[in-house]
Amino acid sequence: MNYKIDNLQYCKWSREVFQINRDAGLDAVHVTVVYHEDYDEFLDRVTEWDSHFKENSDLIFQGKSFKDIEKAKKENKTAIFFGFQNCSPIEDDLGLIEKVYEKGCRFMQLTYNNQSLLATGCYEKNDSGVTNFGKEAIKEMNRLGIVIDMSHSAEKSTLDAIDISQKPIAITHANPSFWHNALRNKSDKLLKALAKSNGMLGLSLYAHHLKDGTNCKLESFCEMVAKTAEIVGVDNLGIGSDLCLNQPDSVVEWMRNGTWANTQNFGEGSKKKPGFPKQPGWFVDARGFKNLEIGLKKIGFNVGEINKILGNNWYNFYKGIN
Amino acid sequence: MNYKIDNLQYCKWSREVFQINRDAGLDAVHVTVVYHEDYDEFLDRVTEWDSHFKENSDLIFQGKSFKDIEKAKKENKTAIFFGFQNCSPIEDDLGLIEKVYEKGCRFMQLTYNNQSLLATGCYEKNDSGVTNFGKEAIKEMNRLGIVIDMSHSAEKSTLDAIDISQKPIAITHANPSFWHNALRNKSDKLLKALAKSNGMLGLSLYAHHLKDGTNCKLESFCEMVAKTAEIVGVDNLGIGSDLCLNQPDSVVEWMRNGTWANTQNFGEGSKKKPGFPKQPGWFVDARGFKNLEIGLKKIGFNVGEINKILGNNWYNFYKGIN
Repeated sequence: MNYKIDNLQYCKWSREVFQINRDAGLDAVHVTVVYHEDYDEFLDRVTEWDSHFKENSDLIFQGKSFKDIEKAKKENKTAIFFGFQNCSPIEDDLGLIEKVYEKGCRFMQLTYNNQSLLATGCYEKNDSGVTNFGKEAIKEMNRLGIVIDMSHSAEKSTLDAIDISQKPIAITHANPSFWHNALRNKSDKLLKALAKSNGMLGLSLYAHHLKDGTNCKLESFCEMVAKTAEIVGVDNLGIGSDLCLNQPDSVVEWMRNGTWANTQNFGEGSKKKPGFPKQPGWFVDARGFKNLEIGLKKIGFNVGEINKILGNNWYNFYKGIN
Repeated sequence: MNYKIDNLQYCKWSREVFQINRDAGLDAVHVTVVYHEDYDEFLDRVTEWDSHFKENSDLIFQGKSFKDIEKAKKENKTAIFFGFQNCSPIEDDLGLIEKVYEKGCRFMQLTYNNQSLLATGCYEKNDSGVTNFGKEAIKEMNRLGIVIDMSHSAEKSTLDAIDISQKPIAITHANPSFWHNALRNKSDKLLKALAKSNGMLGLSLYAHHLKDGTNCKLESFCEMVAKTAEIVGVDNLGIGSDLCLNQPDSVVEWMRNGTWANTQNFGEGSKKKPGFPKQPGWFVDARGFKNLEIGLKKIGFNVGEINKILGNNWYNFYKGIN
């Protein structure tokens, strides 16, 4: 059986988006439910998702384990797995990790771009690695079955997390920096350590993570996938598109600046281009998986390898979470 | 006019304690109102203090500027200034700094022992210094008039804070490590940088910060004060006793472990001595100021210098806060 999985989306959720994901044949999507929300605000997001599940029960349902990916395949639906892009909902309370797990959280970034209580983000000047609280949190996440996601973390923190975690970790949405040297992309050294620990890299389709941004060519992306497979192996690669369909620019501003800055940070954008960047034409939404399939074939991957990259690797990774 | 100021106490507050502070002749006390409380919990502490002020209005009132120290002197009362030993009440929201200022917060530690969103605590393995959010917070604290207190912070973070802050900072309660090499005490290098920026060091009477702990001799303490005065100058020294009168041991356990640890941290104590340490006999409460006066005289300080150390220096520092 082959599965198609997009392991990171943060769209403005609507029936239209769920339908697009179905049209793309996605059996599972890891969705970001919170960035900087605290615990109570996370519960509000869960309530919103409960409505989505109720109103679109013919298209989606909440996924909690790999079995829900199998179920989704059988029922022609998409299993939605909850994840956090910052650790804000657990506040300073180890006990809240179990609470968010019970509500379905299966992925949690230890940091967004800045320093958190757990680790250092990739936009800080200095990286002190995983903190005292971070070590306790990793242990608890391992115990429960929440994946440690280091997509937005700094390098030493990520290497620490790989080292400390008893289970493989994930970088759900980023690309290798050898291809495009953005702060959010990852070094060869880090990718090798990730792969050695059986961790997963979800390749991103967000324009700021792509060589030539919006103008990135499908060929260039697929060449990068081939080179990355040489570094990490074809079993450790998946897709985490980072699609933010229909989100207004106010959302990316909040993602970057939360409530902690008077000085505006433009993240991977710039003062001239502060908003969400335009997607490349061959991946405007998840239906672009079809183009990836074509491109990966052209670059020389065989069908089995393509199926791994487009979902089977994530499916196998999910099997090891709990 | 001479003022007597204890610039750090965290007692189990009661009329008895306020009376002791009056008997000691204290014109002002900087009290810790929160450690790890969030903003709403801070408001609860303020409500509790409102009751203390109402019920003990013959002994205490809330201080908000140096003028309240003068008023306290005139009225034979003690002005109580609010401070935080962690930045938890401002959560991840720069806007809350003005809110806590309005409620009377005049000192805030950027960290307790662990990593915070603003800086690194002295119990972390690595110290990445003041964070992106920390830089914004310092600017805001400077603007409003909240003193940056680095008593529990790691060295690089403290040097960063001295460097970044446009106003002198304080270490309200710690001792020099040349005398007693505890994690919480401070290096000569740091003390020199502090003094050069007109910052204040409040000398601590907490047994874990003292050479020989509970058995520390008054002579030894006063010798340390004399040597420290040689390093930082007699104008940059005050007292921050760190008195925790009548607090149960459950409080020190919470201070050290909050809600973020399954593995118990004993802080400056140990598994065998997990509780609050006993005070030395010559400083069981603030009435020990009298003994300090005697000891400092004996070691060779003149009356003017003693008055500076026991309060006038803090009074002058308060003049520069707003």
